[in-house]
Amino acid sequence: MAHDPDCPLCRTVAELSVPTTGNVVWQFPQSVAYVGPWQFYSGYCLLASRQHATELSQLGPHRSAFLEEMALLAEAMESCFRPYKLNYELLGNVVPHLHWHIFPRYADDPERLQPVWLALERAKTDAAEKRRLESGRIPAEEVCRRLQTWLSTHNAPRL
Amino acid sequence: MAHDPDCPLCRTVAELSVPTTGNVVWQFPQSVAYVGPWQFYSGYCLLASRQHATELSQLGPHRSAFLEEMALLAEAMESCFRPYKLNYELLGNVVPHLHWHIFPRYADDPERLQPVWLALERAKTDAAEKRRLESGRIPAEEVCRRLQTWLSTHNAPRL
Repeated sequence: MAHDPDCPLCRTVAELSVPTTGNVVWQFPQSVAYVGPWQFYSGYCLLASRQHATELSQLGPHRSAFLEEMALLAEAMESCFRPYKLNYELLGNVVPHLHWHIFPRYADDPERLQPVWLALERAKTDAAEKRRLESGRIPAEEVCRRLQTWLSTHNAPRL
Repeated sequence: MAHDPDCPLCRTVAELSVPTTGNVVWQFPQSVAYVGPWQFYSGYCLLASRQHATELSQLGPHRSAFLEEMALLAEAMESCFRPYKLNYELLGNVVPHLHWHIFPRYADDPERLQPVWLALERAKTDAAEKRRLESGRIPAEEVCRRLQTWLSTHNAPRL
C-alpha cells in the first residue's frame, strides 16, 4: 500500500497501528477507526485509510471495502449512542489523505440543524468553546469499549 | 421502496424522475444525481436516495450500491472538472432523507482549506454572497452534459 512520509495522516495511521494506543476503536483491513477530539458530539470518530490516497477513485479495488468499513462503523455508532442523526464527511481540505469524520448529532444540541463546522470554527479562536466541544458525556475509553463490543459481536472485518 | 409523502426530498426524487427535468445528471438504480445550486463550486452535485431512509444502515442490501453510485459520480466529477479536492458529505440535519453533497474544491478559492459551510452560512443573510456562490464558470446544462458523457462512456448503472 502507498505511504507518503510527508503526510501527517500516514504517520497517524502508523502510530495507531501500535496495539497499545488508547483511542483506537478498530483496525479494519482498509482503515483504522479512532475516537476524535470533539466529544461534545458524543462518540465522534475518524476513519483513516491505510493507503495514502487523496480521492476515493485512487483506491481501485479497495474502494468498496473502504466504504463498507465506514458504513459499518457508522452503524456501530448509531447503535451505541442513539444519535438524532449522523453526519458522514470526507473532506481532506487541510490533510488530503482520505479520512471520514462521523459526527453523531443530538437532539439537545441547539445547533443540530447546522453542520458542525460553524461551531468548530469558533473553537479556533475561543478557548472556552474549544474546551466545551472537546468535553463529552462519555469518556473516550468508554466510547472505544462500546464500539469494540458492537463491532466484535457483528464480526466486523479486522486487519 | 419506502416513500414518505411528507418528505421534501421524496418529492424532489419523484419530480426529478420526469425525463424532461433540466438539471438531472443521472438516474442511478438507487439514487438520482442532479446539479446543485452552489455552482461557485463548479460541478457541485447532489445525489439523493430513491428510498426514503435517514441513515445508511436503513438501506439494507442496497447500501453498497448506493455508496458505489456516489463514488462513481464523484469519479466522473473529478475527471470532468479536475478539482483540487472533492468534499463528500452526507448530512441530512435539515432534511433527513439520505443525500450526498459532492463539492469540487478549486485551488483559486481563498477558502479552499475550509468546509464550504462557512461561506454558505454567509449566503443566508447576504444576497450578493448568495449570487456569487450560485454563479459558476460552467453553465448547469454543460455540467450535466459533461457528466452524462463520462457516465455513459463508463457504463454507469441506470434505472
